[in-house]
Amino acid sequence: MTPVRYRAAVMEGPGTPVALTEYDAPTLEPGAMLMEPLFAEVCGTDVHLSHGRLAGVPYPIIPGHVSIGRIMEISGSVTDMEGNAFSPGDMVTFLDVHETCGNCYYCLVAKAATRCPSRKVYGITYSSCDGLLGGWSERVYLKPGVKTIRIPEKLSPETFIGGGCGAPTAFHAVQRAGIRMNDAVLVQGSGPVGLSAVAFARISGAGTIIVIGAPADRLTLAKAMGADETISLTATTAEERTRRIRDMTGGRGTDVTIEATGNPAAIPEGMTLTRDQGTYVIVGQYTDCGNVEINPHTMINRKHLDVRGCWGSDYSHFHGAVQAMARHGAGVPWHRLAAWQYPLELAAEALADVEAQRVPKAVIRVAGRP
Amino acid sequence: MTPVRYRAAVMEGPGTPVALTEYDAPTLEPGAMLMEPLFAEVCGTDVHLSHGRLAGVPYPIIPGHVSIGRIMEISGSVTDMEGNAFSPGDMVTFLDVHETCGNCYYCLVAKAATRCPSRKVYGITYSSCDGLLGGWSERVYLKPGVKTIRIPEKLSPETFIGGGCGAPTAFHAVQRAGIRMNDAVLVQGSGPVGLSAVAFARISGAGTIIVIGAPADRLTLAKAMGADETISLTATTAEERTRRIRDMTGGRGTDVTIEATGNPAAIPEGMTLTRDQGTYVIVGQYTDCGNVEINPHTMINRKHLDVRGCWGSDYSHFHGAVQAMARHGAGVPWHRLAAWQYPLELAAEALADVEAQRVPKAVIRVAGRP
Amino acid sequence: MTPVRYRAAVMEGPGTPVALTEYDAPTLEPGAMLMEPLFAEVCGTDVHLSHGRLAGVPYPIIPGHVSIGRIMEISGSVTDMEGNAFSPGDMVTFLDVHETCGNCYYCLVAKAATRCPSRKVYGITYSSCDGLLGGWSERVYLKPGVKTIRIPEKLSPETFIGGGCGAPTAFHAVQRAGIRMNDAVLVQGSGPVGLSAVAFARISGAGTIIVIGAPADRLTLAKAMGADETISLTATTAEERTRRIRDMTGGRGTDVTIEATGNPAAIPEGMTLTRDQGTYVIVGQYTDCGNVEINPHTMINRKHLDVRGCWGSDYSHFHGAVQAMARHGAGVPWHRLAAWQYPLELAAEALADVEAQRVPKAVIRVAGRP
Amino acid sequence: MTPVRYRAAVMEGPGTPVALTEYDAPTLEPGAMLMEPLFAEVCGTDVHLSHGRLAGVPYPIIPGHVSIGRIMEISGSVTDMEGNAFSPGDMVTFLDVHETCGNCYYCLVAKAATRCPSRKVYGITYSSCDGLLGGWSERVYLKPGVKTIRIPEKLSPETFIGGGCGAPTAFHAVQRAGIRMNDAVLVQGSGPVGLSAVAFARISGAGTIIVIGAPADRLTLAKAMGADETISLTATTAEERTRRIRDMTGGRGTDVTIEATGNPAAIPEGMTLTRDQGTYVIVGQYTDCGNVEINPHTMINRKHLDVRGCWGSDYSHFHGAVQAMARHGAGVPWHRLAAWQYPLELAAEALADVEAQRVPKAVIRVAGRP
Repeated sequence: MTPVRYRAAVMEGPGTPVALTEYDAPTLEPGAMLMEPLFAEVCGTDVHLSHGRLAGVPYPIIPGHVSIGRIMEISGSVTDMEGNAFSPGDMVTFLDVHETCGNCYYCLVAKAATRCPSRKVYGITYSSCDGLLGGWSERVYLKPGVKTIRIPEKLSPETFIGGGCGAPTAFHAVQRAGIRMNDAVLVQGSGPVGLSAVAFARISGAGTIIVIGAPADRLTLAKAMGADETISLTATTAEERTRRIRDMTGGRGTDVTIEATGNPAAIPEGMTLTRDQGTYVIVGQYTDCGNVEINPHTMINRKHLDVRGCWGSDYSHFHGAVQAMARHGAGVPWHRLAAWQYPLELAAEALADVEAQRVPKAVIRVAGRP
Repeated sequence: MTPVRYRAAVMEGPGTPVALTEYDAPTLEPGAMLMEPLFAEVCGTDVHLSHGRLAGVPYPIIPGHVSIGRIMEISGSVTDMEGNAFSPGDMVTFLDVHETCGNCYYCLVAKAATRCPSRKVYGITYSSCDGLLGGWSERVYLKPGVKTIRIPEKLSPETFIGGGCGAPTAFHAVQRAGIRMNDAVLVQGSGPVGLSAVAFARISGAGTIIVIGAPADRLTLAKAMGADETISLTATTAEERTRRIRDMTGGRGTDVTIEATGNPAAIPEGMTLTRDQGTYVIVGQYTDCGNVEINPHTMINRKHLDVRGCWGSDYSHFHGAVQAMARHGAGVPWHRLAAWQYPLELAAEALADVEAQRVPKAVIRVAGRP
Repeated sequence: MTPVRYRAAVMEGPGTPVALTEYDAPTLEPGAMLMEPLFAEVCGTDVHLSHGRLAGVPYPIIPGHVSIGRIMEISGSVTDMEGNAFSPGDMVTFLDVHETCGNCYYCLVAKAATRCPSRKVYGITYSSCDGLLGGWSERVYLKPGVKTIRIPEKLSPETFIGGGCGAPTAFHAVQRAGIRMNDAVLVQGSGPVGLSAVAFARISGAGTIIVIGAPADRLTLAKAMGADETISLTATTAEERTRRIRDMTGGRGTDVTIEATGNPAAIPEGMTLTRDQGTYVIVGQYTDCGNVEINPHTMINRKHLDVRGCWGSDYSHFHGAVQAMARHGAGVPWHRLAAWQYPLELAAEALADVEAQRVPKAVIRVAGRP
Repeated sequence: MTPVRYRAAVMEGPGTPVALTEYDAPTLEPGAMLMEPLFAEVCGTDVHLSHGRLAGVPYPIIPGHVSIGRIMEISGSVTDMEGNAFSPGDMVTFLDVHETCGNCYYCLVAKAATRCPSRKVYGITYSSCDGLLGGWSERVYLKPGVKTIRIPEKLSPETFIGGGCGAPTAFHAVQRAGIRMNDAVLVQGSGPVGLSAVAFARISGAGTIIVIGAPADRLTLAKAMGADETISLTATTAEERTRRIRDMTGGRGTDVTIEATGNPAAIPEGMTLTRDQGTYVIVGQYTDCGNVEINPHTMINRKHLDVRGCWGSDYSHFHGAVQAMARHGAGVPWHRLAAWQYPLELAAEALADVEAQRVPKAVIRVAGRP
């Protein structure tokens, strides 16, 4: 009998094209599960990975840190957070971050689990030699203890994967910003994180929401996600942006600004556009894109500004994003971010399209192999 | 009969030497009081004023925003916050910030009274043509509504003026930092704000307190104020400072860092020396000393850092500093910062000594004119 | 020439029927304005006033603490919070709470302005001998400094007065509760405060919202305001309520519960229905309705519960409620609470209908005297 | 060769006298350690255990949830939170709470680990059939994953065990209270938790600290721990206590009150003695001592009070208490609470003395068997 084998799209190393490889079906240790992805995400981080811009990545890797699919196999009994057992056929997703230790200073005293030095991330910190530990694959091996969430019935897979990894990141950023009813909010950036931040700010009862971004089609989408106004980054000067935002905020600037650009130059502008004693959340500087000049007197001290770095997300943010998307997904077009779907064979092309910004994000459709 | 006249040290304008001028005794409007300062402070802000570095100052002015002295005259009945009437002879101080409006967006909605655009400040925003509204004077006119505090018996005038305007500023910064028991604290800067920050951090139960500053005698004073360790800014490299602070903090950096330097270059260093998910308070950039480069990825986003600008102080901070100095003043040598006393006639010299950093701070001793 | 006179509905004292009285047109002091109410509210507090249940009320009084109408006369120039001058004809409302002193411990140090002992309240703490200082009148005298808000164009007067004094109270309660996205919320009580709490919780992104209340028509309205589920207080036992709420909350109870009942017996039930480490806001015990037994071990200590008393509201809550009603009023049927309108002549009947709970709330329609 | 056997004091069941039993030396599983206690605590919880007042206790048990001693044996390599390996001879303590799951709603979403349903507690929730899992024993078996802390050199074992389980509990309560510089603090109760709360409030910079308690010698100790004033519960009426506390707090009551009594009747009194918009922490109702009547209008709603239940403690509180006792133990007489020492043979007598309140707390001295 021929052993079952599964194909995965593998990144051999920085600069090497993504290519399909076959792997033996894994044997499940007790408490493990095997998932067949329906969708796996291709995001900006994967572009960074393809260029070797993240430190300590154990190439070759199977990329894909956020995915959704069906459980195909379970070794023993595995339960969700509520204690309900999973069954084959369940539609699930899982938290890519794994092995937060629960024993270090950051886990125990600082209560900053996203800074735990032991944490591992599916699709990023695991080698393909360690197993099917990334989403660009016909099967994903869910190790014992991987935090798996049953997808609520009201949440369509397209909505979920449209939110993708940007959704929990944006959920975290909006919580960290402490957005409350009526807050005037500026979102800098109209990529996946910025668009989900708009949606979650709107759900949180924000007042005027303004997006600075590009290109035009993303600004259109930003309005559909809940923005009141959008400002084209490329078609305006900094002075024009300042004037328009002052006009919309009683001359004061926004109560809260969320930076989701990946561009250090956004930071002094964002601080300036936030009102005195406002809040500025920096969530878009996930990789090192270099330095930027700020004026600490005018931008932070005299403004009495709160600047909050926002790193990663933990289970509560992932869970919260899923809950909020399930409740509000019918009215927020997250699924439109899942419009660009590629089969596993075209993973390299999907990656190239994301890098060239021909698409805001790409989705690998795995299940139903043609 | 010769009318009574009072002398004041007046700054005619930027670049003009401070000189004594005589003024007629003012007539008190109802609710006003006249105070004879025992001590008035000379601080770094006065140096900035002498060079015209603050915008919108209505020269000529009588400098001196923090002072302590006796009430000489009262028009009608004036009470303190507790409703107790003042009497001539009472030793008092008063909040330099005045006329916070109570009616604007910042006062009413944002609850950010230190950003109220109507606020006025004794010794800075009043012209000498408006009256005796600064501390470098034989009498200070306390307008109706000026928030006046009776000095508690246990608080010596030397302790109070040694704290000076740095004490409420530092009190605010330590509150804004949210310092709690055991927190490892770095204070950048050993000037009056930094030294009081050390004292208030110690009173708040901080663990290890480290000061980076200069010159050597101030670092000695920093230890007397409560620091466990001091690091000379001039005798160390950035690498040495980093290594020493990592060694003292389990390799992580400090839980809280308070920037009190006036030097933008302190900011990237301070962010780097603070631990992940720590708190960085910027209180020392009171005037515009220029830009600085930061790396938003490594210093804020990945660190999940909280950066908090801290501007000015309100009555609660002033009141809190007085209370804390009254309780703890016997054990904290604030009075040593009041060692350099000058008569009113030598105000210009006091200012020159502060500017040249020959003294950490200077005090004008007004009462008991020689 | 006959002097102009205005009619007002006056409460002479506890137990005395409300009756119309005529007053001379007042002379405006500088900074004062005269408003003609379109609508003035009749609420539960007015019932308490008619029975003498509030201490220190200087009868005779003109009731009506929340009203909306047009400015008829202005003495000098009066501006709103943004500095824009009012003009005759402007549709406005004003904060009933007045003369918060800005000088006491509560205003300055505790920053608890709603506990300022100097505050006065239109319709409650002013005698009719002091002027037209209540809404049940053809004119309301807006003293200098009364905080007046221009009604935004998008906010209909019916929506505003339907919210009435319950809206800022509920806005405050929802802010004090810190409701965030996905929070399961229980509102105890389906009166005006409870109904607005439902609306503001929904606007804030709450997850499941449950209301316990009565009678049936208010529960229907509660659903229209945003509740997912309602439970009849009169048709269920405590055990049934507990079971249903556990069923809807994964067995844990609600994240946040807001008590808005006026019935002390609601408190132990509400604490029990809230999950461990949840938040319980008590806003409905505005008058003294007696004691209640709680078990501090099972209801507070072991639960690690946060219990938050919520007293009154300040300008920020009033402003916030107006902003939120302007933005969301089209989708939330606040106007349905303004359906029961009475002319000024029928104020006594309006009060009787509120007391007998024949209507959830009553509105005096003043302008356009028949 | 005779196998090694260890003696432990065992509680067979409610109402049965504590008696010594011998157990075989355990075989260590990988990651386990064996500790010889120097001191183990006898506290009020042990009295409750002896009467069967806690639900679900698997008698027979070896009591003693907090102890300190030396590591005698290690299986494999075990490290502390900082990653430093333990060695035989190390003086350590360990967190009695164990097996917090890290996978449930409370651990992951609510971030309320003290409410995790899986947690187990040494000395309480383990049967003696499960092993040497309580401190009243010649050896304690530290299971793999038990959170063990190396005792800092500056912290004497007497100081540590004098603080005992009251210290982390009080540390948690003081953090939950958010005590800041100058806060006037009332501690209700002068038992081990109350006394440590006084010490941590003092360390946190509190202003006036007042203790209501009994008997007289504990009030004397309360002053030595940092209280400014003490009030005898037995020698005063409620009116006298109210008057004295008003006199010491400007007529307003305390900013923060910590209930540490175990008596429900303390709660209405404590709420009343706290100032408007103050904070009231309930930490003393660890077991169910019955109901109490409160007035929700006067005590919570009108006061705008914050009431915070405080349950158990987690590693951060335990670690924090150890750090603070190490730093401040020389100036705070915790060791005086360790004055009543009993050998293991006299565990029953120690328990009887605690129950009869002949001693504020008792300590079993295990090492150095006579």
